[in-house]
Amino acid sequence: MSQDLPIAIACRLDKSDALDLTRKIVEYFLEKNVKISLENRIAQRFQPHLRKDLRHMDEKSVKMIISIGGDGTLLRVCQNLPRNPAPLFGINIGSVGFLDEFDNSPESEDLLYKVLDRIIAGDYYIESSMRLNAVCNRKRLQNALNEVYVVSSKPSKVLHVGIKIDGALLNTAYLDGVLISTQAGSTAYSLSAGGSLIDPRLRVIQIVPVNPFARTGGINPIIIPSTSEVEIELLRPKLNALVIIDGQQEYHAFPRSIIKVRNAESNIKFVRLKKDFKSLYYEKLRAKILTGVKIPREDSPEE
Amino acid sequence: MSQDLPIAIACRLDKSDALDLTRKIVEYFLEKNVKISLENRIAQRFQPHLRKDLRHMDEKSVKMIISIGGDGTLLRVCQNLPRNPAPLFGINIGSVGFLDEFDNSPESEDLLYKVLDRIIAGDYYIESSMRLNAVCNRKRLQNALNEVYVVSSKPSKVLHVGIKIDGALLNTAYLDGVLISTQAGSTAYSLSAGGSLIDPRLRVIQIVPVNPFARTGGINPIIIPSTSEVEIELLRPKLNALVIIDGQQEYHAFPRSIIKVRNAESNIKFVRLKKDFKSLYYEKLRAKILTGVKIPREDSPEE
Amino acid sequence: MSQDLPIAIACRLDKSDALDLTRKIVEYFLEKNVKISLENRIAQRFQPHLRKDLRHMDEKSVKMIISIGGDGTLLRVCQNLPRNPAPLFGINIGSVGFLDEFDNSPESEDLLYKVLDRIIAGDYYIESSMRLNAVCNRKRLQNALNEVYVVSSKPSKVLHVGIKIDGALLNTAYLDGVLISTQAGSTAYSLSAGGSLIDPRLRVIQIVPVNPFARTGGINPIIIPSTSEVEIELLRPKLNALVIIDGQQEYHAFPRSIIKVRNAESNIKFVRLKKDFKSLYYEKLRAKILTGVKIPREDSPEE
Amino acid sequence: MSQDLPIAIACRLDKSDALDLTRKIVEYFLEKNVKISLENRIAQRFQPHLRKDLRHMDEKSVKMIISIGGDGTLLRVCQNLPRNPAPLFGINIGSVGFLDEFDNSPESEDLLYKVLDRIIAGDYYIESSMRLNAVCNRKRLQNALNEVYVVSSKPSKVLHVGIKIDGALLNTAYLDGVLISTQAGSTAYSLSAGGSLIDPRLRVIQIVPVNPFARTGGINPIIIPSTSEVEIELLRPKLNALVIIDGQQEYHAFPRSIIKVRNAESNIKFVRLKKDFKSLYYEKLRAKILTGVKIPREDSPEE
Repeated sequence: MSQDLPIAIACRLDKSDALDLTRKIVEYFLEKNVKISLENRIAQRFQPHLRKDLRHMDEKSVKMIISIGGDGTLLRVCQNLPRNPAPLFGINIGSVGFLDEFDNSPESEDLLYKVLDRIIAGDYYIESSMRLNAVCNRKRLQNALNEVYVVSSKPSKVLHVGIKIDGALLNTAYLDGVLISTQAGSTAYSLSAGGSLIDPRLRVIQIVPVNPFARTGGINPIIIPSTSEVEIELLRPKLNALVIIDGQQEYHAFPRSIIKVRNAESNIKFVRLKKDFKSLYYEKLRAKILTGVKIPREDSPEE
Repeated sequence: MSQDLPIAIACRLDKSDALDLTRKIVEYFLEKNVKISLENRIAQRFQPHLRKDLRHMDEKSVKMIISIGGDGTLLRVCQNLPRNPAPLFGINIGSVGFLDEFDNSPESEDLLYKVLDRIIAGDYYIESSMRLNAVCNRKRLQNALNEVYVVSSKPSKVLHVGIKIDGALLNTAYLDGVLISTQAGSTAYSLSAGGSLIDPRLRVIQIVPVNPFARTGGINPIIIPSTSEVEIELLRPKLNALVIIDGQQEYHAFPRSIIKVRNAESNIKFVRLKKDFKSLYYEKLRAKILTGVKIPREDSPEE
Repeated sequence: MSQDLPIAIACRLDKSDALDLTRKIVEYFLEKNVKISLENRIAQRFQPHLRKDLRHMDEKSVKMIISIGGDGTLLRVCQNLPRNPAPLFGINIGSVGFLDEFDNSPESEDLLYKVLDRIIAGDYYIESSMRLNAVCNRKRLQNALNEVYVVSSKPSKVLHVGIKIDGALLNTAYLDGVLISTQAGSTAYSLSAGGSLIDPRLRVIQIVPVNPFARTGGINPIIIPSTSEVEIELLRPKLNALVIIDGQQEYHAFPRSIIKVRNAESNIKFVRLKKDFKSLYYEKLRAKILTGVKIPREDSPEE
Repeated sequence: MSQDLPIAIACRLDKSDALDLTRKIVEYFLEKNVKISLENRIAQRFQPHLRKDLRHMDEKSVKMIISIGGDGTLLRVCQNLPRNPAPLFGINIGSVGFLDEFDNSPESEDLLYKVLDRIIAGDYYIESSMRLNAVCNRKRLQNALNEVYVVSSKPSKVLHVGIKIDGALLNTAYLDGVLISTQAGSTAYSLSAGGSLIDPRLRVIQIVPVNPFARTGGINPIIIPSTSEVEIELLRPKLNALVIIDGQQEYHAFPRSIIKVRNAESNIKFVRLKKDFKSLYYEKLRAKILTGVKIPREDSPEE
């Protein structure tokens, strides 16, 4: 049945590589008589009658969404999906693309068509990722796949915040911002700010203080249950914060606001080409994140 | 029934404070006709006929074990307990004592006796902590409550290790050592080495690389499921490692050894005086670990 | 001769504590027939005829400038001073106040008057601090006492920068921002971002990358000569940066801009009450920055 | 005149690559009628009559010392040289070799002979590096090119130390160890422990606390003048420390010992092949230390 649903395609517009690849994939699917939908903004460039709003791409309406670009593209798509979104398949065209399942390169066109054939045949696996939801002064914000970031509205002034976990005070601190990150977000901004990596089999939340004053604010990153609620209270009487969702959407929060963050109860499903998600994850981690000085294997100190 | 089991007492021997407090507690229990046992080395100083080997203090033989000293004392006791150990109640006499439930101070003698009365009455809660077990070249080592630390045998020479998680390679790195830590260990050496704190409600393992070469070894701390197996392979042909359990026991590992670490399936139970373990934990965290520069609450930048 | 020059006073306006203290000091000086000047914005509240623009407070016009508030106040004053500025004496009224020489507290009014008497008598020492100057696309920005901060204009998007030192490429990196800090700035934002502290007897510049992507960008903080020129080139074709001077002034820099930072050749002089500046510095460092867990001195592991 | 002095050769013995290269260089020099000396332990393998003790290789006796191996080899040689040592030229055979001037590879044999010809012709530059000297309980230890490391004698027990700079207390801390590092050492162990890099044109000392307890010990790395004296006092009544010089020599220090470290007033001279030492340094830094995730230059967020 789900075979009859269209495969949707979303894409970055400002890169000719992304547009060329999209055209190639659209043509291949049409040639193979595969039903497709195109997100509005690309439909008008290619086939206007195939357009579909991202906000209608739930799992009952489309088989999956192919996101062509990089992590930014995929996060933008995520932000606009409805409840129970269709699974996502990310194709990376030359950025870090950690969230993407497939790195396209002009040299491996054969591989791309093999992957498209598997997608047509339904020969793939689904991995599910939790999301976070933030409520700021009773306003419910967009869901976050990677992180909710509460940051000073002025890069030159530090926030003073109180952080509570399920109602228990963790501490107050003077800092640039506080990240509340998912497992998926642990390779994104959280990592830059000193957070721990998190195995994809875990459902947990990581709170990461960003540049705490004098490094003695005393708050290290902390891992908490996925069922916990985090509250960030803005304590400085005259300094606003921004609440940023996945680096995509910004909301303003005023002094004395309390930002509450918890499990969104609305997961993102990723299309995976191999069943052993954990091994896939560690391969990608080594290839894309854990690079560094290479040491010859046999090197040993002289005795 | 468990009311009839003796309360066991273990203690630090090199501090007169610890010995004085032990004497006071022993006298109080005897006065109240509470059955007690004393670990061998203190029994011979107080009441030799009350001696009991730590190795026999399982939950069928003693009601609980009161550990008097600090974290080091409690870890020493843990190392020597049998399978299914009796619950532990730590009394701290002036060190950091994060694992201890009660901070004794000469000024609060009343409080001490109230606590002892609650213990006699069975008026307390039990919190359970997982432990890790390391196997080094097929030799099973002691269980670890805090961490298994694989460290260079020479402080001046770095290890070269390969790290695998459930058989998947994480990376190889040049470093002083690798910590494999429990939740309980997240406030101990793991924290000094840059690991994240972990909420006491979580069962996870944290792997922390210690001083990786040039900080570009690329391996950050990583959180993995409590059911995972970590393998550390020693790659340098001529450098031995030590495997240290909870900072207490040391084992030698030779080049090419593989150290495998996993859930010990033998928990430690802690006696708690309040039911909301999580709030207790965060109170202790703020009081003992998260200290730092204090900022006046109303401070704000001039507009 | 310099005895005849007026003592100038600058102050925070949004705190009644600061205004009250200013009034008290003004009255004391007038009572003692000491010539004073008031920065414009406070003159109009107290004695309009005593007003003097900060931009005219060079060492030939005023004996010294007393800055009443905290570090923010002192940095604001610094930003507005002319070349060859008069020496600064900071009075802190309840913030961290690391740049301030004197922490005022209501309990120590006697001490305050003793300090004012020493100031009147010329009984003090002068310590000199270098400043940095940034040029952005040929526009010369205000001098910085603490740091020049080149930061992404969007807290959700990272910069891609190339960093050169005296024309030699250090590296390119993906990060939130780059701090170029003086010795004085080493206890300020630089410290939050992981920079090293710098002894006050040294004239050096520290470059601190802020939240480099994946911590593998590979750039650590680096200490360079005070005579060096740092160039930051903005590499992302579509992302603006802000150049922030001492957390006070913001300038916009467009893609492909090069920001050049070097010694401003215009020092700030600080009034010090003790001659051994280095010991003073370490006392303040311990009191205000290096707080943390206190360990009992005699604590030792049990053997 | 110095042309008539022999060129000395030292080498790693446990690697056939190093021995083969040494043989090749010896043969080339003999063929060209260049006078050479061999350190004792290699002389007995090649030409026993050419042997010379490292302890006699001062600048009046040998023209330069070629060290064949890696950083470890060069540090070993340094440890054994007399006052006013001859300049050093390091040839790296496959390790990180940051201190070495030349990376040998079998593919670039031509380049090696060109370099040897320049050495014979005296066509090179000299860069000078300061060293540190430690005195432990009045015993003067070997000079350190990279660092003096005061570390717990037990990897499982932390030191408690007091740190003074020119007699002024910096702080006391609970930690694994304290590094006192030179500029040259800033790319070595100091970097792994979180120290800042230091430009080769600077003469400064960096003190780096290693794994301070709970990261709240409050002591960050600190940069001090090259003329300063650092004192480390061992405060724990029952825990010994090791004092390790350049990762090569170990000395025992007992509780209550004070280790004093200062400028050794005996520099090491390095042979350099290019005059712009600073550019050379940054090239090596990028190539060997600052590797990391590579980002495509044109990557920018979609607007």
